Amino acid sequence: MTLNEAIEKLNELEKAGYALGHAQSILYTDGDTVAPKNSWKGRGMALSYLSELTYKQLVNPETGEVLETILQHRDETDEITFRRAEVLKEQYDDLHVLPMEEYVAYQELTNESSAVWHDAKEKSDWKLFEPFLEKIVAARRRYASLKAPEKPAYDVLLDEYEKGATMASLDPFFRTLKEELSPVILEVAKREKPVPAFMKGPWPVSSQKAFSEKIMALEGIDPLNCTLGETEHPFTNNTNKWDVRITTHYYEEDPFFSMYSVIHEGGHALYELDVRDDLQFTCLSGGITMGVHESQSRFYENIIGRSRAFCTPLLKVMKEVFPEQMKGVTEEDLYSAVNLSKPSLIRTEADELTYSLHVMIRYELERAMIGGDLKVQDIPVEWNRLYREILGIDVPDDRRGCLQDSHWSFGGIGYFPSYALGSAYGVQMLREMEKTVDVPGTVGKGDLAPVTAWLTEKIHQYGSLKKPQDLLPAAMGGPLDATVYTGYLKKKFGELYHL
Amino acid sequence: MTLNEAIEKLNELEKAGYALGHAQSILYTDGDTVAPKNSWKGRGMALSYLSELTYKQLVNPETGEVLETILQHRDETDEITFRRAEVLKEQYDDLHVLPMEEYVAYQELTNESSAVWHDAKEKSDWKLFEPFLEKIVAARRRYASLKAPEKPAYDVLLDEYEKGATMASLDPFFRTLKEELSPVILEVAKREKPVPAFMKGPWPVSSQKAFSEKIMALEGIDPLNCTLGETEHPFTNNTNKWDVRITTHYYEEDPFFSMYSVIHEGGHALYELDVRDDLQFTCLSGGITMGVHESQSRFYENIIGRSRAFCTPLLKVMKEVFPEQMKGVTEEDLYSAVNLSKPSLIRTEADELTYSLHVMIRYELERAMIGGDLKVQDIPVEWNRLYREILGIDVPDDRRGCLQDSHWSFGGIGYFPSYALGSAYGVQMLREMEKTVDVPGTVGKGDLAPVTAWLTEKIHQYGSLKKPQDLLPAAMGGPLDATVYTGYLKKKFGELYHL
Repeated sequence: MTLNEAIEKLNELEKAGYALGHAQSILYTDGDTVAPKNSWKGRGMALSYLSELTYKQLVNPETGEVLETILQHRDETDEITFRRAEVLKEQYDDLHVLPMEEYVAYQELTNESSAVWHDAKEKSDWKLFEPFLEKIVAARRRYASLKAPEKPAYDVLLDEYEKGATMASLDPFFRTLKEELSPVILEVAKREKPVPAFMKGPWPVSSQKAFSEKIMALEGIDPLNCTLGETEHPFTNNTNKWDVRITTHYYEEDPFFSMYSVIHEGGHALYELDVRDDLQFTCLSGGITMGVHESQSRFYENIIGRSRAFCTPLLKVMKEVFPEQMKGVTEEDLYSAVNLSKPSLIRTEADELTYSLHVMIRYELERAMIGGDLKVQDIPVEWNRLYREILGIDVPDDRRGCLQDSHWSFGGIGYFPSYALGSAYGVQMLREMEKTVDVPGTVGKGDLAPVTAWLTEKIHQYGSLKKPQDLLPAAMGGPLDATVYTGYLKKKFGELYHL
Repeated sequence: MTLNEAIEKLNELEKAGYALGHAQSILYTDGDTVAPKNSWKGRGMALSYLSELTYKQLVNPETGEVLETILQHRDETDEITFRRAEVLKEQYDDLHVLPMEEYVAYQELTNESSAVWHDAKEKSDWKLFEPFLEKIVAARRRYASLKAPEKPAYDVLLDEYEKGATMASLDPFFRTLKEELSPVILEVAKREKPVPAFMKGPWPVSSQKAFSEKIMALEGIDPLNCTLGETEHPFTNNTNKWDVRITTHYYEEDPFFSMYSVIHEGGHALYELDVRDDLQFTCLSGGITMGVHESQSRFYENIIGRSRAFCTPLLKVMKEVFPEQMKGVTEEDLYSAVNLSKPSLIRTEADELTYSLHVMIRYELERAMIGGDLKVQDIPVEWNRLYREILGIDVPDDRRGCLQDSHWSFGGIGYFPSYALGSAYGVQMLREMEKTVDVPGTVGKGDLAPVTAWLTEKIHQYGSLKKPQDLLPAAMGGPLDATVYTGYLKKKFGELYHL
C-alpha cells in the first residue's frame, strides 16, 4: 500500500467514523434529554448495531495496514494527517483487544445498566444496580488484563481518561490534597455561616431558563453552535464545533445548581467550539483528555464563576431576571453565598474547597474495587465509612451516597480523578494567564473574551492535535504541582472565612 | 438458499434496517427541534453516510435472493414474515431504480434544500429556493421515469404516499370537493362572524405548555412512550411504539394553533403507539400509507377536536389553565370560535371547511409541475392565481404563499393529496364507528378511549401488515365516496352558519 493510498483510505475511515460517532452522540444526548422514558429498548438496539459497525470499520487487517503505512512515513506526512493516524491507532489498539461480540455486548450492558442505575437511584436501591456494576467491573478488569497484562488494571483504566495518570502519580497528588485541605475544611466548618435570607427565592423555572440564556451569553457561547437541554445529570456532548450540546437541571429552590451546571458545561463547550476548523470532522476535533476537559469546565465554573470579580456582572444579570428576589443583595453577599463551604453529601453540589475530597473518596473506592480488594456488594458500607472519615458526615441513604453518580453505570471507572486533576491544572493555568491578562479586571466588566482567547490559544484550538505532555506544561508553566491548587484554595477560603 | 436461511437473513436485514432507520429518524427529529442552527453540515454528513449504508444493505444480489426465496414460499411462511418480505421487496424495488451515488446525492440535496427553504421562507425569497426545487423536480421526474416508464410521472409519485392513488382517481375526487364545497364557502363568507373578544388572550407560552400536557392526556397519549418537542413546522416521528415524538409551535397570540397541532400530531402518534407488539422493530411497525396516517391525525384534530361534544372537556381544561382568559366563555362560544370559517392564506391554519381546497391547489400545481406543464420559476404567479380563483383571496408575499409548506423542500411531491384523502376517509370511518360507539356521548365526558379502541381495532393495530385495499373498506364501510365527506362538512357548517 502506497502512502497516498493509505491517506485516501484514512479519509474514508474518518468519514465513516465521523458519521457513526455523530449518530451515536446524538442518540445518547437525545436519550438523556427529550426521549420518552420507554425508548431505551429501541435506542439500545440502534446503538448496539452502530457500535458493531464502528468496530468492524476500525478493526480489520486493512485498517491496520493503512495506519501502519502512514505511521512509517512520518517525514513525508503532514502534521495533522500523521497525528490522525496516531490517534486512530490508539483507538484501533483499544478496540482490537476485545473480540467484536464482547465489545458489542459491553455496549449493550452499559446501555441497560444506565437505565437500571436511574431507576435504582430513584428508589435508593443499591441491590438493583449491584449485579450490573459487578458485570461492568468484571468487564473492565478483563479489558485491562488484555490491554496491558503487565500493568495494574486500575492504571490501565486511569490512562483511558487521563493519559499517563497512574496510581503512583495520583496517590501523592490526593495525599497532598488531603493533608493541605483537611485542616482548612475543619476550621471553616467551625465558622459555618448561615444561608442568607435571599437564597429562599422563590426561583421559578421559567425565569431560571431566561437566566441560563444570559449566563451562556456572558460566557460567550454562540447559540447558533451550541444549545442547552434539560436532563437529570448535566453533561456536554459534541459532534463538531458547529454542533455542541450542553444540558442542565433546574431546581425550584436553588438557582445556583443550574447556573453553575450551565457555566461548567459551557466550559466543556467552549473547548469544543474553539477547536481549529481544519481539525473538524476528524478524530482530532475533540478535547484531548478528560482531565484537560475538566480543567476547562471547572475553570469557568470556579476560577471565574465563583470569583469575586464575576459577582459584579452576575449580580447585574440576576437583578434583571430576579428583581424581587435580589432586592438589596450586594456583590459581597453574592460572593459569600456562592462560596459557602461545608462538608456535604453530593459531589456535584459541593463547594470548591471540599470538592476534591469527594473525588478522592471515589478514587479510593475504584482503586480497591478494580484492584480486587473491595467487593461490589461492600461499596455502600465502604462509601459511608469514607464519607464519615474524610468529610465527617453521615450518609442517610444510597441515593445520596454511592448511587449519586452516573459514571460507573456507563463504565466510566477511572474517570473521577480527572475532576480533581482538572481543577489543579486550571489553577496553574490561571497563574500563567495572570502574567498577560488582567483577569479580575476583565471578568468584573463582564467581558470573558480575553480569558477565552488565552485558553483558546494555549488549549482549545489544538483539539487532540497536541499530546497532553506537549500541551499542558506550556499552559501551566510547568508540571503538575498540587500545592499551587491547595494554595489557591487556602488563600481564597482563608479570606472568605477570616482564618 | 433454503427458506430458513432466507428468513434468518431477513431478520438480520431488519435488524440493520431498524438501527439505521432509528438513527436517521432521531437525527431528523433532533435537527428540527433542539439542534443548533449551524449543525446542519455535520448532520448532513452523517445522514448521507447512513443513507449509503441503508442503500448498500438493501440493494445487493443477496437481498434480492432472500426476498425472492420467501416470496416464492407463501404457503410455508407465516403471515407476518411473508408480509415483511413483501414490504421490503417494495423498498428494494424503489431503491434499486437508482444507482447508489444518485440516491445518496438526492439525500444530500434534500438535506441542503430543507435548510435553504427555511431561510427562503424567512426572507420570503422564492429565488433562493427555486434552483433547489428545480433539481428536486428533475430528480423526482427521473426517478418516476426509471421506476415505471409506462406511467405518468405524477402517478408514480402519488403512489409513493397513497398506494393506488392516480390522477384518474384524484381528479374526480377533487372535482367533487370543489363543486360541493365552493357554494358553501361562498355563503359562509357572506355571514362572516367576528373573532370573539376572549380570543385576544394573552396566552403565555409557559401556560400553553401546561395546556399541551393536558391535551395529550385527554387524547390518551402516554408520556412514557411519546414526548412533545417544539419546532417551526409541527411533525411526528417514530422509531417504534415505545418511542414516538410529536412536535408543536407556540404563538403567544393564539392558543389554538399549538393545541390543534398537538391533537393532530397526537393522532399520528396514536396510530404508531397502538401497533401490535409483534410487528415492532420490523418494517411493518409503522402506519401503512400517508393517506391512512392523515385520516387518523385529522380524525382527532377535526372530527373529534372540533366537534361540539369535545368543547365540554376542552372548556374545562382551558378554564383550569387559562382561568382569566376564559372567564364567562361558554361551550357554544368555544365551538363557534374553533370553527370560524373564512378563506385564508395558510393551509395549516385553515378551518375544516376550506382546508381541502388548499390541498387541491397544491395538487393542481404538482400535477402541472411534474407533468412538465408548469416551470418551477412560474410557481409563485400560478400559486397566487389559484388562490384568487379558488379561495378568492390575494397572496401578499411568497412567505404566506408558495413558500409556506416544507413538503417540496424534502422532496415530498405527491404528499399533499393524502391530507384531503385522509380527511375523507376519516368521515367515512366516523359513520362506521357511530354504529357501535356513542361518539358525542363519550367525547363529551372527556373519555376518548372508546374512540381510540375502535380505531385501534380497525386500523392502528395492523401497522403495515394489511394492505390499504384490505384495511380501508372494512373501516370505512365501503369504497371512498367524496360526498360522504362533503355531506359532513355541509351539515356541520350549515348549522354553524345557519345556512
